[in-house]
Amino acid sequence: MQPDPREFIRAKRDGRTHEPGDLRAFVLACARGEVPDYQASAWLMAAFLRGLDGAETDALTQAYLGSGRTFDWSGLGVAADKHSTGGVGDKISLVLAPLVAACGVPVPMVSGRGLGHTGGTLDKLESIPGFQTRLEPPRMESQMRELGVIMVGQGPDLAPGDGHFYALRDVTATVEFEPFIVASIVSKKIAEGARAIAYDVKCGSGAFMKTREAARSLATRLVATSRAMGAGASALVTDMSWPIGRAVGNALEVREAWRVLRGDAVPGTRALTLALAAEMLRLAGAERDAAAALARATRALDEGKAAERFLALARAQGGDTRAIEHGEPFHAAPVVTELRSPREGFLAGCDCFALGELVVGLGGGRRAKEDPVDPRVGLVMRRDRGARLARGEAFAELHVASEDESLAKRALACFELADAPPPPLPEDLVLESVPDP
Amino acid sequence: MQPDPREFIRAKRDGRTHEPGDLRAFVLACARGEVPDYQASAWLMAAFLRGLDGAETDALTQAYLGSGRTFDWSGLGVAADKHSTGGVGDKISLVLAPLVAACGVPVPMVSGRGLGHTGGTLDKLESIPGFQTRLEPPRMESQMRELGVIMVGQGPDLAPGDGHFYALRDVTATVEFEPFIVASIVSKKIAEGARAIAYDVKCGSGAFMKTREAARSLATRLVATSRAMGAGASALVTDMSWPIGRAVGNALEVREAWRVLRGDAVPGTRALTLALAAEMLRLAGAERDAAAALARATRALDEGKAAERFLALARAQGGDTRAIEHGEPFHAAPVVTELRSPREGFLAGCDCFALGELVVGLGGGRRAKEDPVDPRVGLVMRRDRGARLARGEAFAELHVASEDESLAKRALACFELADAPPPPLPEDLVLESVPDP
Repeated sequence: MQPDPREFIRAKRDGRTHEPGDLRAFVLACARGEVPDYQASAWLMAAFLRGLDGAETDALTQAYLGSGRTFDWSGLGVAADKHSTGGVGDKISLVLAPLVAACGVPVPMVSGRGLGHTGGTLDKLESIPGFQTRLEPPRMESQMRELGVIMVGQGPDLAPGDGHFYALRDVTATVEFEPFIVASIVSKKIAEGARAIAYDVKCGSGAFMKTREAARSLATRLVATSRAMGAGASALVTDMSWPIGRAVGNALEVREAWRVLRGDAVPGTRALTLALAAEMLRLAGAERDAAAALARATRALDEGKAAERFLALARAQGGDTRAIEHGEPFHAAPVVTELRSPREGFLAGCDCFALGELVVGLGGGRRAKEDPVDPRVGLVMRRDRGARLARGEAFAELHVASEDESLAKRALACFELADAPPPPLPEDLVLESVPDP
Repeated sequence: MQPDPREFIRAKRDGRTHEPGDLRAFVLACARGEVPDYQASAWLMAAFLRGLDGAETDALTQAYLGSGRTFDWSGLGVAADKHSTGGVGDKISLVLAPLVAACGVPVPMVSGRGLGHTGGTLDKLESIPGFQTRLEPPRMESQMRELGVIMVGQGPDLAPGDGHFYALRDVTATVEFEPFIVASIVSKKIAEGARAIAYDVKCGSGAFMKTREAARSLATRLVATSRAMGAGASALVTDMSWPIGRAVGNALEVREAWRVLRGDAVPGTRALTLALAAEMLRLAGAERDAAAALARATRALDEGKAAERFLALARAQGGDTRAIEHGEPFHAAPVVTELRSPREGFLAGCDCFALGELVVGLGGGRRAKEDPVDPRVGLVMRRDRGARLARGEAFAELHVASEDESLAKRALACFELADAPPPPLPEDLVLESVPDP
């Protein structure tokens, strides 16, 4: 017999810990519509304010999983994936997924769209003409067998309980709560069939986690819950105080990703991609240790195998890659404005949140789920963090849909100059690993 | 422009204090259905766990008031009323309303039904054959002009916002929260037109407030919020560790009330009724001080004016009072079982909650709103608290619908015998007054 939802809500209201079985039953009943939304949302708020422990977070994750279908790629090997908590200029997945697949590890990557100040992998992929991110399961299966990689959006039957709760969280101010975030992320990765998961937990002005402590805590729980679901997992806490690489904006980021696939050592993008690839290869058991995994990934990138796999993937999903291959600009913005340094000094800081918001404002991202996205707009850095600028030097360019002087001014205000170079960041942007390697 | 409900919910979630205007706007929007229930319930839980201060409680009360109609009896004088937080054997209103009206102060009493272990005034009144507790407003107005007293149920247009929120609180485990309780009670009293309100806050095993601190806190806030709404108010914290008077059960309580109206000094019932009547007369400005008010109420009771007004009231609302007047039993239970003392000793304690639940179990109360009520069943004490019982002495009788030995056993278990008499309770059961007189 189902217990009374009121008793369940009251237990959390009073700070008690749920039995895992009770929690799963409640969440599944909510997802099936047997418990009305007004009871689900009262529980969400009680949990937000009273907390959920590790076992409860795991049970929530299992409930989301149990609400829908799960994929099983074990016939192809140990499937690996990466999840990033969202940053500015984060085009890592575009390079990483084909790279890891090129190393022989299957990658059934399910990604999201941009929302708020961060971009989304699906929007970036869709700036490639014709690229389809919605594949039916039979199509997913055949492509996984042929190419070992898919890059798709979340189908409606993948952890629908999470979708149900996310919609409620969104309207009840219960989004920013670690156990909910963890269950949402992990359930989707497990449902898509990943059994070796590398988490990229961003930390800094452009990340949802502003402090190292918050990032470390989230990283630790993501790893613990993934392991409780039977997957290998690790997390890298990485810097998000400066845009990743040099481009921010959908088509601009695809172009950067292609350059990295062709061997360019774009700072940040290349090294972080390799670090995450090494984690995935190690977790999937393709290599025994981190150094060997890194060497294998580096080789696959430098030998052009990742680029090859990227083109095969894009074509298989309907993408027209001719412009990319021939190095031609695609989705070129009609107006490109240079950002010039107002004085001599070192490029020292960036308000990544403001920069992300600015790109959204240009049309490059979404305020609401239904908003269309302009693939052309964004920002490209000509000089990197720490560079010494002369007065009046053009250090970045803003790609916009139409002339507007105030935009360049706002973009300029996102950057900070200093009289001395800032302390350098790690080349791969990795601040720490969880667990400690 | 309405602010985003999410921002409002987030503010309380984070422990911030609402502006009174924002709170009123949110609650009214919920009551009008402009804010969905799942957002209202998330806010209810956030408020429950983060708290509402006095100004917020007042604003919630105003919002409930603003959601419906309000009555104005100022043409008849300062209308008075009493609210009890609910007890076992609480038939005070049946004597009090006609008594105060007989003293010249109008009493527009709106009461509730029994739910859970406590009885309800409407159920007691309806055990009088033909008594109607639903009157249309024009009828209410004419009866108030003629008799100065009505005893009715809450119409659908009286503080409907409270009804809307109460239904949500009931299913989201957010009922037992002082600010919600206060706003719910006070808004109904103000809406019915009472401007002099005496609160009877019960304390003890048969009350919702188990401790003096909880009862005093509720009493204090009821008085403060009533005053903020422009009414005179005071509260008596009264003992609920022993059933009030001698009878528990609907028709049995009506018979006790009639005895008190006829002058019987039933312990507890008479003195508490007079204490509350004195508060109402004083608050309504009919007497300057407590002693004069008590004397006036006592006179009206002893001269039979209250009994006269009771009969007039019952007849005006369709009640057939012949059985009551002639002292004939009405709704007599088919089976009356004596409770006998298992040993010699003093009647010292009563688990009023268990006793109230037992009477509900007999059919005398409700588990759900729609349950019918059996007016015949209940318990009558033959001996009072502190009485010395011989072994085997019948100290109470249980009125039931059909033979069942286990019932008498359960009833017996509600009482506690001691070797010494218990410390006496105040005659009027008043433990303290708020504010301190």
